[in-house]
Amino acid sequence: MITGQHYIGGRWQGQPQADACSFNPALNQSLRWAFAEAGSMELQQVTELAESAALTYRLTSREQRAAFLEHIADNIEALGELLIETVMAETALPKARVEGERGRTCNQLRLFASLLRSPQEEVHEQAQPDRQPLPKPELRLRTVALGPVVVFGASNFPLAFSVAGGDTASALAAGCPVIVKAHNAHPATSELVARAIANAIEQCQMPIGVFALVHARTHAFSEQLIQHPAIKAVAFTGSEQVGMHFQRLIWQRKEPIPFYGELGSQNPVCVLPAYLQQHSEVFAEQLFNSVVMGQGQFCTRPGLVFLLRDAGSDALKAQLQALCRQHIAWAMLTPKIATSYRQQAATLQQTAGVSLLAEGQGEEEGCFTRARIFCTSARTFVEQPLLREEVFGPATLLIECSDVTELEMLLTTLAGQLTATLYASGSEQASVRTLLQALEQKAGRVIVGQMPTGVEVCASMNHGGPFPAASDSRYTAVGSRAIQRFVRPVCYQNVPAWYFDQQASQ
Amino acid sequence: MITGQHYIGGRWQGQPQADACSFNPALNQSLRWAFAEAGSMELQQVTELAESAALTYRLTSREQRAAFLEHIADNIEALGELLIETVMAETALPKARVEGERGRTCNQLRLFASLLRSPQEEVHEQAQPDRQPLPKPELRLRTVALGPVVVFGASNFPLAFSVAGGDTASALAAGCPVIVKAHNAHPATSELVARAIANAIEQCQMPIGVFALVHARTHAFSEQLIQHPAIKAVAFTGSEQVGMHFQRLIWQRKEPIPFYGELGSQNPVCVLPAYLQQHSEVFAEQLFNSVVMGQGQFCTRPGLVFLLRDAGSDALKAQLQALCRQHIAWAMLTPKIATSYRQQAATLQQTAGVSLLAEGQGEEEGCFTRARIFCTSARTFVEQPLLREEVFGPATLLIECSDVTELEMLLTTLAGQLTATLYASGSEQASVRTLLQALEQKAGRVIVGQMPTGVEVCASMNHGGPFPAASDSRYTAVGSRAIQRFVRPVCYQNVPAWYFDQQASQ
Repeated sequence: MITGQHYIGGRWQGQPQADACSFNPALNQSLRWAFAEAGSMELQQVTELAESAALTYRLTSREQRAAFLEHIADNIEALGELLIETVMAETALPKARVEGERGRTCNQLRLFASLLRSPQEEVHEQAQPDRQPLPKPELRLRTVALGPVVVFGASNFPLAFSVAGGDTASALAAGCPVIVKAHNAHPATSELVARAIANAIEQCQMPIGVFALVHARTHAFSEQLIQHPAIKAVAFTGSEQVGMHFQRLIWQRKEPIPFYGELGSQNPVCVLPAYLQQHSEVFAEQLFNSVVMGQGQFCTRPGLVFLLRDAGSDALKAQLQALCRQHIAWAMLTPKIATSYRQQAATLQQTAGVSLLAEGQGEEEGCFTRARIFCTSARTFVEQPLLREEVFGPATLLIECSDVTELEMLLTTLAGQLTATLYASGSEQASVRTLLQALEQKAGRVIVGQMPTGVEVCASMNHGGPFPAASDSRYTAVGSRAIQRFVRPVCYQNVPAWYFDQQASQ
Repeated sequence: MITGQHYIGGRWQGQPQADACSFNPALNQSLRWAFAEAGSMELQQVTELAESAALTYRLTSREQRAAFLEHIADNIEALGELLIETVMAETALPKARVEGERGRTCNQLRLFASLLRSPQEEVHEQAQPDRQPLPKPELRLRTVALGPVVVFGASNFPLAFSVAGGDTASALAAGCPVIVKAHNAHPATSELVARAIANAIEQCQMPIGVFALVHARTHAFSEQLIQHPAIKAVAFTGSEQVGMHFQRLIWQRKEPIPFYGELGSQNPVCVLPAYLQQHSEVFAEQLFNSVVMGQGQFCTRPGLVFLLRDAGSDALKAQLQALCRQHIAWAMLTPKIATSYRQQAATLQQTAGVSLLAEGQGEEEGCFTRARIFCTSARTFVEQPLLREEVFGPATLLIECSDVTELEMLLTTLAGQLTATLYASGSEQASVRTLLQALEQKAGRVIVGQMPTGVEVCASMNHGGPFPAASDSRYTAVGSRAIQRFVRPVCYQNVPAWYFDQQASQ
């Protein structure tokens, strides 16, 4: 059923390798599916096909691309339970989460379809032939597609940020061919979704090079792919370490191209005393749920909680302890992620000035990990650089400050973040203003009174932020504006209107 | 009258150095004005002041920033003839051109003022608390300023792309402090314009670190400045060589920041036979005027002219010869630019397959250079990589093709361009469509039937293009959208409306 092959140029190809199998993290064992490994032949094929497809695909009409995206969504839904079960087997994510993510993935594709059906944004200025001292020419500002895009699937969003996820959907909507490097943590899922796209290519008679899926366990293939002259943009979701490795390789190219890396974030949450006094219990529950949601593998998981040291913070700590101790260990996405989480947790526990407030239940065998709540002082937070490293997993760190001024000072020391959140009561308005002004300088999304997990897919979303949250803070990875990552503006001066009418009706 | 000092922190400082004098290219002699040289002390001062000013300047109201920009424009106009004469002395640009450029510079400042007075663009989505399966939060998308910006003045636009030029105006409008590294080719002009800004800072009570002007002849200061952690974006207009040197230094930073380099362009012009047959004389005149305008020192000078080899091309060549032979040598901006132009011209003349069609009159002494028209075949153009290098000066190269197919093939081999132009008659519509589709993949602005020199400053302008025309093809250096280079989006989720009302009224 799963071929284990690449999808290149409209056909499935490549020899699955017995030692490159998919893995079931919940059972801690290999799945029976083996996968091929891309090399120099595949590199040449995918880049040539994408380069050639770019020339025709960019000229498809907006309606044609909208229909293409909708067919992909329909075909993903038509995969039915097979897809859900495959994702669950490869990721250990619970069924409701996987079904929800499938819904979000199809919604994203349909959002871009509907964006394409709305009129193209265009600034059109009429000529003023009699203007003094110089006539004004007729000018239109439109956008054109950048060309072939490489997308790296994300481990933690096997559907919504992988083969047909937000990066692919926005690049295809923009008129760019896409080459997806399947994430090794869910290659069978990737193959199924690639099938949905392959069918849509046939149904919509799209150029065969418009999409390719390649499997590659070694970095070498990916490194050569993103340095290839045919590639005009790269989208990546993953660790800062791998992302910046790719970024540096891209900087070595003769022609600079955009790199959109979503690299990591601690998502600070600040809670002020008057709010905590009134809502401690609800806040503790919301926070804890947000920390352990998806076994803490959301890029928007709140990893730092700033609060003032007082009776309210003691109450909160007690509530979080109670919640955490009831939490049962569960599997993370991959053995590597689980090991890394446990190592980071052990390091935190051994760090002077950091205490482990509570820990969940159950054995940490295989990919299974326990939730953890750590606590530290403002002083330790300032002195220990390792506390600024994202812990990818079900843990959070409370930082107790002596007053709002100290809290504010700590915020200025933070690196860039995807989100920054503030909980405050109506009586704390003066502090709210100052803190929001501090937080908006650090984050791509600023939230009041809600947890950062849960990213709405819409026109006003911004999922990105100052480095290292994103490699390029000017763009969003989520929402309709994500399409802007894959186009560039062109000004058309005195170009006859029939040229645009013809394009629109193509 | 000219102090030769830096403007840092609201005061003029630094010791002018006798060996760092301004130069008059028309007279080929030093001017009496000597200038200071920035070092590590100035580096620390400007970065600290800009970093500190960023915190308060970003919170000024849009009205405050609009008034600030208008005061700068008024103060530039108030400099009167002194400014015009100083620019002429330092650049050898003719009076009408300098006056025109002053007008454009003030218009740019007022354009951004009027942009700030129009409502801030904001996407605002209402909460849907009852939405199933999950409620939708209230979301607003707005922008925030990036922080301190470094601007490198351009040699060829001593006003419109220097101290208070488009880069500075758009960065100040965005809410970013600006540090200008004065161009060594017009330091006295830079000081005068900096005075206009300094006065506006006092008149509008802006933070003193919001603007600084520094003089530095060595690259070392600039290199350290753009690598400083306080700097959040860099705008540069100049050669690909220097621009990419700066770009690589910026890539070595711990925190990546945007680099907006406008680096060079050959601005291909294609003219089809039926058009040429009817309009040969007018075309020859328009083309030649565009080539020699400002002694060929416009970034949009047409440096490549593609045409078909036939009776029409012979006629055009004869007309261009006649025009060129009447053209009198004039001074370029600097001795270095003049020397470089003469060297490039000599190399072209010695290149097999390239012929010098015509040359202007007068001696090439000092900064003076003659206009030149070169001619070559499609084959030589393909084989000689040096023909793809921008010649900065009053020269152009005709490339004779055997048919439209060959012309099209040549276009696919071009690097990125600021502009690409097509002249065709109504009977050539089929070729127009194909050629425009080829040109829009290579250029930031596509023009029909008009010369590329002359860049309208408006909302629909795009002055940029694929590399190496610009280092970042997604942004424009000219027009109101240039402000987007210095902001990033922030999504505000569930943030109370009073927070924004308060900001607007500040």
